Amino acid sequence: MSTPVPVSLGRSKLIVIIAALLVYAVFPGPPANTRGQESKTLAERLGYAADAKLLIVHADDLAVAHSVDAASIKALETGSVSSASIMVPCPWLTEIAGYAQAHPQADLGLHLTLTSEWALYRWGPVAAKNQVLSLFARDGYLYPTEREAAKNINPREAEVEIRAQIEKARAFGINPTHLDSHMGTLFQTKELFEILLRAGRDYKLPILVSKDFARGGLFTTSLGPNDIMIDSVITITPAVTSEHWAEFYINAVKNLKPGITELIIHLAYDDEEMRAVTFNHPDWGAAWRQRDFDFFTSAQCRKLLEENNVKLITWREIGKLLQK
Amino acid sequence: MSTPVPVSLGRSKLIVIIAALLVYAVFPGPPANTRGQESKTLAERLGYAADAKLLIVHADDLAVAHSVDAASIKALETGSVSSASIMVPCPWLTEIAGYAQAHPQADLGLHLTLTSEWALYRWGPVAAKNQVLSLFARDGYLYPTEREAAKNINPREAEVEIRAQIEKARAFGINPTHLDSHMGTLFQTKELFEILLRAGRDYKLPILVSKDFARGGLFTTSLGPNDIMIDSVITITPAVTSEHWAEFYINAVKNLKPGITELIIHLAYDDEEMRAVTFNHPDWGAAWRQRDFDFFTSAQCRKLLEENNVKLITWREIGKLLQK
Repeated sequence: MSTPVPVSLGRSKLIVIIAALLVYAVFPGPPANTRGQESKTLAERLGYAADAKLLIVHADDLAVAHSVDAASIKALETGSVSSASIMVPCPWLTEIAGYAQAHPQADLGLHLTLTSEWALYRWGPVAAKNQVLSLFARDGYLYPTEREAAKNINPREAEVEIRAQIEKARAFGINPTHLDSHMGTLFQTKELFEILLRAGRDYKLPILVSKDFARGGLFTTSLGPNDIMIDSVITITPAVTSEHWAEFYINAVKNLKPGITELIIHLAYDDEEMRAVTFNHPDWGAAWRQRDFDFFTSAQCRKLLEENNVKLITWREIGKLLQK
Repeated sequence: MSTPVPVSLGRSKLIVIIAALLVYAVFPGPPANTRGQESKTLAERLGYAADAKLLIVHADDLAVAHSVDAASIKALETGSVSSASIMVPCPWLTEIAGYAQAHPQADLGLHLTLTSEWALYRWGPVAAKNQVLSLFARDGYLYPTEREAAKNINPREAEVEIRAQIEKARAFGINPTHLDSHMGTLFQTKELFEILLRAGRDYKLPILVSKDFARGGLFTTSLGPNDIMIDSVITITPAVTSEHWAEFYINAVKNLKPGITELIIHLAYDDEEMRAVTFNHPDWGAAWRQRDFDFFTSAQCRKLLEENNVKLITWREIGKLLQK
């Protein structure tokens, strides 16, 4: 059964990934370990065998809601989740910042945010309004979709906001291990992507970009020889029905290629708060996030990773290459 | 058993009310219905008998959390709650604005907000940052206590913010029936009180001020003959233990004086979201709000009001006097 791609959420991720995979199918290019200036693969540079299957299981959207924070922390501490990223403009930042301070080894990055997508619950930017006027939708919050955001935002102002989010996180005691982009807004145009790239370079933090993306041809001209790219990114889509949820992840793990893959998941409890946050939007909704939570905190998942010789790694490990 | 007055919440309300009652005990003044330019009492001006016992049961803090909104709406629709007020800077504004638009007869005012009091969950002002710099605590949100807010805020900037909150509410389709002040910050100084008073006059909206307050001597010089004052305000305090909760309200209703009283309550469910919002602060916490919800949606409460000939009224009724 196929579910239509949702209007407001995550399309960019899907489009980027699907486009990348399609392009890769036609022009697969040379094997990854012979490309670029480094003769070693990223996995080898991290000290792993070239054929090791390395996985970052990454929870998005921390600080959006207490339900997200509570479920993500539980899964980081007791489940098969190795990394997560925080949305600095969101109401529960103080909660997750407190956690980050108390758990300096937790692998927490920033999910840089230029959109506010839910119907009943909204947030604005971090920077002073007069510095980032183009970021505001007419209702006084961030734009609800990545398309509208990319279309209306002045990239200079996007850069001001992104830097303000990084600085605010640091002021709150968060030392991010990596940077990525909520709803892929910073992957919408080359100009926006270069903002993310510059932030990563300036702060010496890895950004989420994979060879899949690069093979899609989207940003290859922006990337330099010193920029780190993981190998691939996987995320579940609304086309997967709830009864096939575990099956999707089981197949993803069984078919994992050697190299570094990020599996993007979305955790929360299917509770009153989360049902209200995601009101009228089952895709990436409360039940969706509970399903992700249930799978990635299960014994089944832990066993699956073991049986398939998949090693969970973190962005912190990758970031060390940039700090040398 | 006595509970200490909390550090961060509601002290101003207590102090104002206790001070007012103490002063009134010493200088009770002439009977209410012979004071001022009007020979009729406010109750009579609304068409009630001079000895009618009129009560606004008023839920504070709408828009703070989904739990608050859901419980308050339920109590407004099915319980003995007649009015409520909305905090415009808070994350769930869009939810309650949707409700207000769909329920134009609901008696919803604005709980004008200059503080952000909870440990893990914070909000900032509505106005552009550069116009209200003095409103920001060092962490980039509003001050946590009314004392700090009153001490640090530039009153001109407080007025900009208050007006921005009223305008934002209107832009979101809320037609407020009254104005009051979250944590009583606008009752902290005469200058701040006059901001509330001017807003009420300019928008032709009644503000929460009672003869108790005026008798306390705090603002009598600011009030003019055309300003509307209700007779008294009652609210439960942390000194009341949970087992005496219903008893407090039963006594309050049984001892109600003729005239117009506002009973300020705080509604939410004792759920995960609300326990996280009110983390580490049982006073005005999640269980407190559930107790208020349970009492004011009970058959016991409905019967109590009936048996004591107490009529529930709204701010909308009072506000009509200002629109004539």
